[in-house]
Amino acid sequence: MKAILILSGGLDSSTLGYYLKANNYSELICLTFDYGQKHIKEINSAKIIAEKLNAEHRLIELSLLKPILKGSNSSLTNAAVAVPHGAYTKENMASTVVPNRNAMMLTLAWTIACVEEADVLAYGAHAGDHYIYPDTRPDFFTAINNALRLGTEDLNAKNLNLIAPFINKTKSEIVTIGANLNVPFALTWTCYEGGDIHCGLCGACHGRKDAFFQANIKDPTIYRN
Amino acid sequence: MKAILILSGGLDSSTLGYYLKANNYSELICLTFDYGQKHIKEINSAKIIAEKLNAEHRLIELSLLKPILKGSNSSLTNAAVAVPHGAYTKENMASTVVPNRNAMMLTLAWTIACVEEADVLAYGAHAGDHYIYPDTRPDFFTAINNALRLGTEDLNAKNLNLIAPFINKTKSEIVTIGANLNVPFALTWTCYEGGDIHCGLCGACHGRKDAFFQANIKDPTIYRN
Repeated sequence: MKAILILSGGLDSSTLGYYLKANNYSELICLTFDYGQKHIKEINSAKIIAEKLNAEHRLIELSLLKPILKGSNSSLTNAAVAVPHGAYTKENMASTVVPNRNAMMLTLAWTIACVEEADVLAYGAHAGDHYIYPDTRPDFFTAINNALRLGTEDLNAKNLNLIAPFINKTKSEIVTIGANLNVPFALTWTCYEGGDIHCGLCGACHGRKDAFFQANIKDPTIYRN
Repeated sequence: MKAILILSGGLDSSTLGYYLKANNYSELICLTFDYGQKHIKEINSAKIIAEKLNAEHRLIELSLLKPILKGSNSSLTNAAVAVPHGAYTKENMASTVVPNRNAMMLTLAWTIACVEEADVLAYGAHAGDHYIYPDTRPDFFTAINNALRLGTEDLNAKNLNLIAPFINKTKSEIVTIGANLNVPFALTWTCYEGGDIHCGLCGACHGRKDAFFQANIKDPTIYRN
């Protein structure tokens, strides 16, 4: 079977790639979006993970949205807004919301999935993100799947479905799944700062550390702090 | 009030621009998408209509989707597939479907509407297209509005709504509305062929001619045939 995967290069979507391979999606096309995120380093991780998966990798640059997102209030795309340090909580992470990010990525990826006549489009939404990012929640997932299916219902792609196998898993459960699938965690990228190694201070790094700690699995990541 | 309008430069979305202006949307941002359509001429019409409306105009080029859509079966984007001539019927027009087109445009436009803190995002779906294009149907409209609202529900944009005032109007009813609003129909573009004047033979030209005929309003368009 054929899957299109939205692969950020992070821990969750990388594990999802391995999960799909282990679940009979032998043909895999990985899409990574450049929307002007400061942590552009994740794109390199995505390329490396796609190679490890023997999957095709496509980078999609949202050129014309970059200036718009730079002008949004998101700390991930606006140079004037600092990436929050500290705990991975709703309040602390609020500035990291990129407006409508998953809807954009899923909709563009759905077009590719239609043309490629894929069986599924997969993304790595998980339960640990629900309280921060509305576009990772089950009600959004159900609604966007419904909308995309209705919008293309007369095409050959009418059997195409969106899947989010980790949508009810915590990040530490994903670490456990990934460990069992031998995901090369050290090659994945989580940090929201723009550096060359994980900062260890930002909310995303905190969330990564916590996930390994809770899963009781050794964290291979090199953190600056 | 502030509206974001998806303006193709065609008769329907141009009339919608005038309709919005007449309905207290004094601030209008018009978005036109370049997705590799053969009838690129419509983009120029969109610019001219936006000028007439004293509205800001933004062209959004979907660079990375162009090669994908060129490889789709759509006669609007694949040079090897001829644009159908003759009646504007489901069977005849089937090849003109561009997979997932409205979902892509609406989702990208929604992001802009969030950042711009607009009151509405408007698009020109109408009843005459329902039987051909699934992404103009009321059930798709309701579903994508729901999905986009859920995906951005924690943002300032939580009051943003998608509107499609013509979704239950026929194209001839839109001509009547447009005539009452003094829409400069001659400046709008409908033809799906890539020429400099309307061909008068393609299905889209047939649909345009029929709309004026049924509305009993003089068609100012110059057709080659």
